[in-house]
Parts: sequence; structure tokens; C-alpha cells
Amino acid sequence: MKHAVSYTLIKEDPRSEARRGVLHTPHGDVQTPVFMPVGTQATVKAMKPEDVASLGSEGAHILLSNTYHLYLRPGHELIKKAGGLHKFMNWNGAILTDSGGFQVFSLGHLRKIEEGGVFFRSYIDGSGHHFSPEISIDVQNALGSDIIMAFDECAPYPADRRYVKDSLELTTRWLARCKEHHKDVERQSLFGIMQGGVYKDLRAQSAEEIVELDLPGYAIGGLSVGEPKELMYEVMEDCVPRLPKDKPRYLMGVGSPDCLFEGVERGIDLFDCVLPTREARHGRALTSHGKINIKNAAYEDDLGPLDPECDCYVCRNYSRAYLRHLFKSEEMLSSMLLSEHNLHFLVRTMEKIRKSIEEDRFLEYKKEFFDKYGKF
Amino acid sequence: MKHAVSYTLIKEDPRSEARRGVLHTPHGDVQTPVFMPVGTQATVKAMKPEDVASLGSEGAHILLSNTYHLYLRPGHELIKKAGGLHKFMNWNGAILTDSGGFQVFSLGHLRKIEEGGVFFRSYIDGSGHHFSPEISIDVQNALGSDIIMAFDECAPYPADRRYVKDSLELTTRWLARCKEHHKDVERQSLFGIMQGGVYKDLRAQSAEEIVELDLPGYAIGGLSVGEPKELMYEVMEDCVPRLPKDKPRYLMGVGSPDCLFEGVERGIDLFDCVLPTREARHGRALTSHGKINIKNAAYEDDLGPLDPECDCYVCRNYSRAYLRHLFKSEEMLSSMLLSEHNLHFLVRTMEKIRKSIEEDRFLEYKKEFFDKYGKF
Repeated sequence: MKHAVSYTLIKEDPRSEARRGVLHTPHGDVQTPVFMPVGTQATVKAMKPEDVASLGSEGAHILLSNTYHLYLRPGHELIKKAGGLHKFMNWNGAILTDSGGFQVFSLGHLRKIEEGGVFFRSYIDGSGHHFSPEISIDVQNALGSDIIMAFDECAPYPADRRYVKDSLELTTRWLARCKEHHKDVERQSLFGIMQGGVYKDLRAQSAEEIVELDLPGYAIGGLSVGEPKELMYEVMEDCVPRLPKDKPRYLMGVGSPDCLFEGVERGIDLFDCVLPTREARHGRALTSHGKINIKNAAYEDDLGPLDPECDCYVCRNYSRAYLRHLFKSEEMLSSMLLSEHNLHFLVRTMEKIRKSIEEDRFLEYKKEFFDKYGKF
Repeated sequence: MKHAVSYTLIKEDPRSEARRGVLHTPHGDVQTPVFMPVGTQATVKAMKPEDVASLGSEGAHILLSNTYHLYLRPGHELIKKAGGLHKFMNWNGAILTDSGGFQVFSLGHLRKIEEGGVFFRSYIDGSGHHFSPEISIDVQNALGSDIIMAFDECAPYPADRRYVKDSLELTTRWLARCKEHHKDVERQSLFGIMQGGVYKDLRAQSAEEIVELDLPGYAIGGLSVGEPKELMYEVMEDCVPRLPKDKPRYLMGVGSPDCLFEGVERGIDLFDCVLPTREARHGRALTSHGKINIKNAAYEDDLGPLDPECDCYVCRNYSRAYLRHLFKSEEMLSSMLLSEHNLHFLVRTMEKIRKSIEEDRFLEYKKEFFDKYGKF
């Protein structure tokens, strides 16, 4: 039985866990490690899909979209009728959808967890809904994304050991139900999600249980949920070796420049984060020399590009003074251009990371990057 | 002395005042009659300049920007320092700037008119400013637009005869000062503005006075300010023959589909209007079969294009259901795509109007258009 998505390991860094690979999907190959732009509501905010596809020098080939949002609006049945999410949103690359679990659990008092699934209220109109592993798979089947994620419970931080243990065991039982319910594995690949909070033995238990199910890919969930970054790195470092080498590893919801490097160093292949587009809408740009806030008066008559070392469309054609003017004038072009630049910056950085792994100088590149970028 | 902007009349419609021409500008030729997209704050709202340049099948080659807005923010001196408005906003086609007069007079009690000029308060921070014919020219010289407009008073509708007569005479005196003050006529061309409200004898007086000054182009101002459309057409019909045949004629601030056809029929060459982009941001699309509101529930699962007869990027790649989803989800891509479609629709319609004039079937095309489009 051929899986929709498979992974080829090309090269391992001799001095870290960093690795170069290729993710083969029904919508093309994706070079890893990779950063996935987020298109929550079937659009990467403020960008045309063609502009997403031409980010960096190699283009972006995979993006993430959110099952929870699409289920509530416009509804997965409509998207199915439209020929699937790719066609609906005019995106020909690969798509990974999350399961909706994270968003549902984030609702706090607006949801109730049971063995069967979760009851929750819509953030749009307050209507009542029920999500279960089976429903999440049904919805993702209708969306037709290349990679679909298991319906998991993401425990908060801090959470006591008992809660986290119960939660990861529920996640495992739900994963088995997801696998059981997902039929067309040649069209879409189901990835499992490791939980266990910051408890290493629980992470070990979770890894063991989910790897048992022999899935085409695995994610590390429940990180970057409030714990200190050093603790996140420590847990990540402990988690990755528990996952099979021949499967892709996805660190969910993480994508600041420092986390990308630290994740790659520890063996992560896939990342996603709303940071670049959200920062853009607030007038903040990621540059080779650190983050800048375009609102600052210092840029009022600065006719240089956002980032002198950047080769993106925005840096080639516009000045900081113009971008500041757009932001102050509340023009949409401000969000459009800053989003494009920020995504380009991360996509381009990942290209450079991949090249550095190929050339056995990942750790050197990491140092070079942060010598200029500075620490967060 | 060579003027920056000149006009070549190519062909006249034998059965109406419609005419085909070319406007030669320092930033390329513009085929007329033409609709100019509006880029008030140095950006056509929600569009990249390259996407504006590729509207229709021939592209858009001229746009309008607003002196008043750019003077207040980011300031004309900054734009001059940036190398002019074209470079600042990354637009290589022609630019026409208005004089700021219309916006200043729209401020009502926030401004005070004298022979010398107008005192007004900034809508941004309430600061006090003074505009005069000379200052408007200075600002437009700094912006570096290809066509600069005279600083005029645009009388409201209704307004009594005495007011309108005084106002048009002030406009003539100001025009003479603008002409006197504008030196580099080989770089930028000053267009005069005819006023006179809905009083035909006053329009005649205004025309006579401004044509006397022998400028490279003339605009009809003070229409579409509240008067009934039929009255506007009647005044326009009376005005146009009073302007020289060998100069371009610009109808200011007008650009709905019906006004475009009625204006072309009466001999107008240039139009501008915020309608297509403003309508877009409110979820309204111009189509071959009339205006539609994408919010309507009828489009919820309509997988057809916005306009089945449209060949634009949006209609080729997205469904009404998707566009409705974007609008309901308050995604910027909604404004981006609807703006692109609406501008394409008007630019493409003007292309068809030009072709119909070339082929002596303008009136037939007008009928065909409205048989499908319906009346407003």
C-alpha cells in the first residue's frame, strides 16, 4: 500500500541532528527542513497564492490551513463540492491541515471534552458543535489536503502530571480511531501527534504508543504553549530521537527565526507559524539585522529598503519611508508588502539552512545568522 | 516649447462626439478614451502596482493620485527626495495629480477661502495649513506627476448663480497664477479646469477664459457633485464643444459604467473615479450583467466565476463562493481580488469602447453593453 506522502532522507548533519530531506506529496515535492506559511481561512492573509508560490528563490511548496475555521466557515461540504481546498483557494502546492483540536481546546469554557470527542460553541455565531476523531477525519477528507493531522488534545502549560498523562493517553486512543477511520491513505496521509507536555517520561510513553501505529509522519504537539523557550528546546531534544528516522517530523505552531534554527538543529523537518503574517499586519518586519518596527519615526525619511540584504520583491521596489507611509495611512498594501517580505525572509532562510546542511556548515550558518540578527 | 503632455486625435465617431486619441506623456502613451484608477495615498487601494499595470488586456497606463493627501502625509518634500511619486510608489506609467482644491473645499467649515488661497485644517491632526495656486503647483512639482491640475474652486450643487459666477472667475484668476508659477512645462503639463456649475452661460464664460490661456489639456470640474445625472449629461454636452478639439478633455471624478459611456459619447477622453475600488471593499462587483453584492446568500455555494464573460485573473481562478467566503471572513484577499476585478472590468470596457470607435460602432456597443448590464 502506497502512502500519499512519503519522506526521503538525503543527508544528515554530522555535528547536529539537522537533516536534509524531501517530502513527496500528491501536489509535488517539498524540500525539507521547510517553513509552511499559514492560510487559516483558505488564504494566506493579504497574499495572492501565486505570490506565496514564488516566495524565496525556490518558491513555497506547502502551506497549512485550519480545519476548525474551514469547518465553521465556509464549511467542508462546500469546499468538497468546489473540488477540494486546493482548487477552492487556487493553490497548486501541497497542503497540510490541522485537526481542529488545538483551536477547539483553546476555547476554554466554551468546550467540554469526553472520550467520544469535544462539544464546543462556534466563535462566529455561538452555535453548538461536536468534534471527534472521526468527524475531524471526515472534514479533512472533504478538504482533500495532502497531509491530515490526528485529532489530539493539546494540554496547556503548566499542567499537572496526572492531567498530561490522561490527556496523552486519550490522544493515543483518538489517534487509533483516526487511523481506523481514515480510508484513502493513497490520497491523504495521516500524521500522528506526540503529546506529554514537558514530562520526558510521558513524551517517551506517547512516542512509543503513536510510533506503534506506523504512520507516514509524526508531529510534536504541545510545545510553544507558554513554557520557557529553553525548556521547549530541552523537551524537543528529548522527543525527536524517539521518532522514526525515516518519517518526517513536524513541530506544530512554531516558526520564529530562533525556533527554526533550534528546531532544525534538533532534527525537525516541518514548521508552521502565523508569526510572519501577523507581525506584518502590525507593521513589524523580520530582517537580517533583527526585527524592525516600520512605525518608528526613524524610518520616516529612510529611503533604503526594509532589509539591505534581502532580494525579495518588496526590498527591490520599495523604501522603508514608503512602507511606513502605507502603514500610517492604514493602506492594505502595507500588510500585503510586509507579509510578502516576512514570509520571503523565513522561506529564504530555510533555503539557506538546507544549503548549509548540504555543505556541512549548518552550525556555522546558524552562528552567522544570529551574529547579525541578534537574539530575540 | 515642447509640452510634456500632448494629444493626438486619431478618429472621430461620425454619429456622436466620441473620439479615439493618444495622450503622449513622459511616462508613455495612453490610449484614449481612458479610465484612470485612483491611487489617493500613493497606492491604488489593495493592489500591487504591477497588477494595476496589467489590468485589462492592454494594461493600465495612467493613474490619478491626490495632492491634498500626499501633501499632508507623507509630505511632498519626502516624495521629492525619494525621486518623485513614480519612484516612491513603484509606478512606471503616467500619473495625473489633482490640485488638492476639491478635497480642501470639501472640508466645509474647516476651511476659509480668500483671493490668495485657502486656509484649512488637516483631517489627520487638526493642524492649520494654507493652500494657494502657487503652493499647489509647488507641491505637484515636487511630486513630479506627468499631468498637474490647476487649483480651482469647485462650487457645490445646488449653488446660486452669483456664487457660481464669482467662483468660476476666482478659478480663472487662480489658473492664470498656476500657469505663471509652473515653470518646467516640458516635464509636467498643467491642465485648466472649467467651472460654472449647471449654468450654461457661466460654463461658456469659464471655457472662454481658460481656453484663452492655451494649456495642453482641459478638465470639466464641478459635475457629479449632487446634481441629477440627466442634468450632468446635459451640461457636459454643452461644455465639451467649448473646449479645443486638439486638446484632451478630462471629466473629473466620474467613472461609473453609465457615466463612462455617456461621457465618451459627448467627447470626453479621461475619467477617474474611486468607485471600482470602493465598491470592491464593500463586497460589490461590477459585471457584464450588472452590479452584484458578493455578500448575498445566493452566492454561498455558487461555484461559477464573478462574471462568466470576464477574462480577468479573478474570474479565471476563483468562484463566487470563495469570494463570498473571503468577504464574510474579513480577509484582505477579498478586497484585493474584488478591486482587481472591478478595475479590470472598467479598463477592459474602455478598451472595448476604443475598439468600437475605431470600427464606427460605438453607439451599437453602448446599446449592447446596457442591454446586458441594465440601467443603474
